[in-house]
Amino acid sequence: MSEHVTICEVGPRDGLQMAKGRMPTEVKTRWIAALAAAGLPQIEVGSFVPARVIPQLADTAEIVRRAVLLPGVTIQALAPNLRGAQGAYEAGAHRISIPVSVSLGHSRANLNRTPDEQVAEVGRMVAWLRAQPRHVPVEAACSTAFGCSIDGAVAQSEVVRIAAALAEAGVDDISLADTVGYGNPAMIRATVRAVRAAIGPALKALHLHDTCGVGIANALAGLDEGIRKFDSALAGLGGCPYAPGASGNIVTEDLVFMLESMGFATGVNLDKLLAARAILREGLPDEEMHGNLAKGGIPRTFRKAA
Amino acid sequence: MSEHVTICEVGPRDGLQMAKGRMPTEVKTRWIAALAAAGLPQIEVGSFVPARVIPQLADTAEIVRRAVLLPGVTIQALAPNLRGAQGAYEAGAHRISIPVSVSLGHSRANLNRTPDEQVAEVGRMVAWLRAQPRHVPVEAACSTAFGCSIDGAVAQSEVVRIAAALAEAGVDDISLADTVGYGNPAMIRATVRAVRAAIGPALKALHLHDTCGVGIANALAGLDEGIRKFDSALAGLGGCPYAPGASGNIVTEDLVFMLESMGFATGVNLDKLLAARAILREGLPDEEMHGNLAKGGIPRTFRKAA
Repeated sequence: MSEHVTICEVGPRDGLQMAKGRMPTEVKTRWIAALAAAGLPQIEVGSFVPARVIPQLADTAEIVRRAVLLPGVTIQALAPNLRGAQGAYEAGAHRISIPVSVSLGHSRANLNRTPDEQVAEVGRMVAWLRAQPRHVPVEAACSTAFGCSIDGAVAQSEVVRIAAALAEAGVDDISLADTVGYGNPAMIRATVRAVRAAIGPALKALHLHDTCGVGIANALAGLDEGIRKFDSALAGLGGCPYAPGASGNIVTEDLVFMLESMGFATGVNLDKLLAARAILREGLPDEEMHGNLAKGGIPRTFRKAA
Repeated sequence: MSEHVTICEVGPRDGLQMAKGRMPTEVKTRWIAALAAAGLPQIEVGSFVPARVIPQLADTAEIVRRAVLLPGVTIQALAPNLRGAQGAYEAGAHRISIPVSVSLGHSRANLNRTPDEQVAEVGRMVAWLRAQPRHVPVEAACSTAFGCSIDGAVAQSEVVRIAAALAEAGVDDISLADTVGYGNPAMIRATVRAVRAAIGPALKALHLHDTCGVGIANALAGLDEGIRKFDSALAGLGGCPYAPGASGNIVTEDLVFMLESMGFATGVNLDKLLAARAILREGLPDEEMHGNLAKGGIPRTFRKAA
């Protein structure tokens, strides 16, 4: 039995929110269905934020209502505050993710709150969700954990402090997010170790961007430290509003290739995953699509030992 | 003092030989000078093969004669046989690299010899070079060490056998080449360990391609195993004649970013390195250029601790 690694596909949220175009709801629905059919165990399908803030995700409630009907996939929605969490719950989301910037500059720009104010908001969200009849797990993401395009370097001690505060607030899982993609493998390893020393197994996932071309190496560094859950996006969709031209999330196809080649089980069918790029292309004809595996195709040696 | 990692820039050889266009000698000369001025310690500037085989490298002898005049950089040329080694020596190359395919199919297609016949040729080349007045170190590359697009999976035992035969033949350094880019970090680690167990410190370098998007993670895996020398190409130039559409070598800019961010010293000035892309673009206007760092620029946190 191979050890399992969970991939949460965040293209429909983190990818689309940065896209120049707007994917029609009907295409989005088909795309998410194709991602689920490829075997992705979790998909983050949108954000519960005002439509004027991220118009690309204005149809999130409708998308969640459709996506939760898909068999065998956990549908996650992002919510930055209590109102968003209530919307996600009411739409039927299986899981909710909450961003909590570690750096003050990013926190103010993205959430209009200080990090500590956002930790307090997370506490209110968890309290409200725990009072509802349906159990909805909460994942809090420590954003800008490996650097910030506004504030620059981020102290590891601050990452540990925010992660510990989030664990204290009662979230189910905590992830570390390289929101602007400034991280490197040594930093990933050191931060994962420091956070785990503080909060133990509540540290579950890494959310990595490929801004500097080392995102997949950062994933390997996390894997080596025992991380068994990663966010990624089909075709490396995404970007950073504070880093013009930067590449997006790590590429799901390439990540699946790496993990499966190394003997981990992801549950993903790589052929079906690559085929889902066509729907993304249909819905966003002008968006740059990344990913090297798609260019040359799956090697003939894939999953075959010598 | 930071530990040093040596990068051998192979764009002018492995990159150009696959290019659709042909870079003029004058631009090539300026490009190599810019790469040297950026601090790259080694540059592989061409191949001594017949011009009809690789017309893009027909000017290799002239390029070597010019490049060896550059201060502070080791100029390497590829030679597949004794005649090529004689040409490289006569042009003044500082180092010679010799490809030796581990897989029979690639060896026949690329060298028109079996692997063992090529090992014997390496022996003749080393003998000839050792008899010359000027000392020219030889690096032999075990090509297709991590898979072959013609033969499929390559047995690790064959990699070890060829590496041991090359060590026996008296080459100075041995590298393992993921010629078609099918490797993964687990395979890199296992093969590096097995080869090192057989030949010890003669195993010096990894030559990696980014066909499946995990080339930089493969470099990290090699780094973790103690490898301190890597081939790479500016803008990830290159490709594989047997894998249409596949990406090229790992990207020098991204590799430098990773290594320097992790505290290793490469001697490379990243700003100057990125600037050298403009000359590449001038010389090959239609070639696809890879590399994420160049898109978003060097992060403000680079080389600055929190």
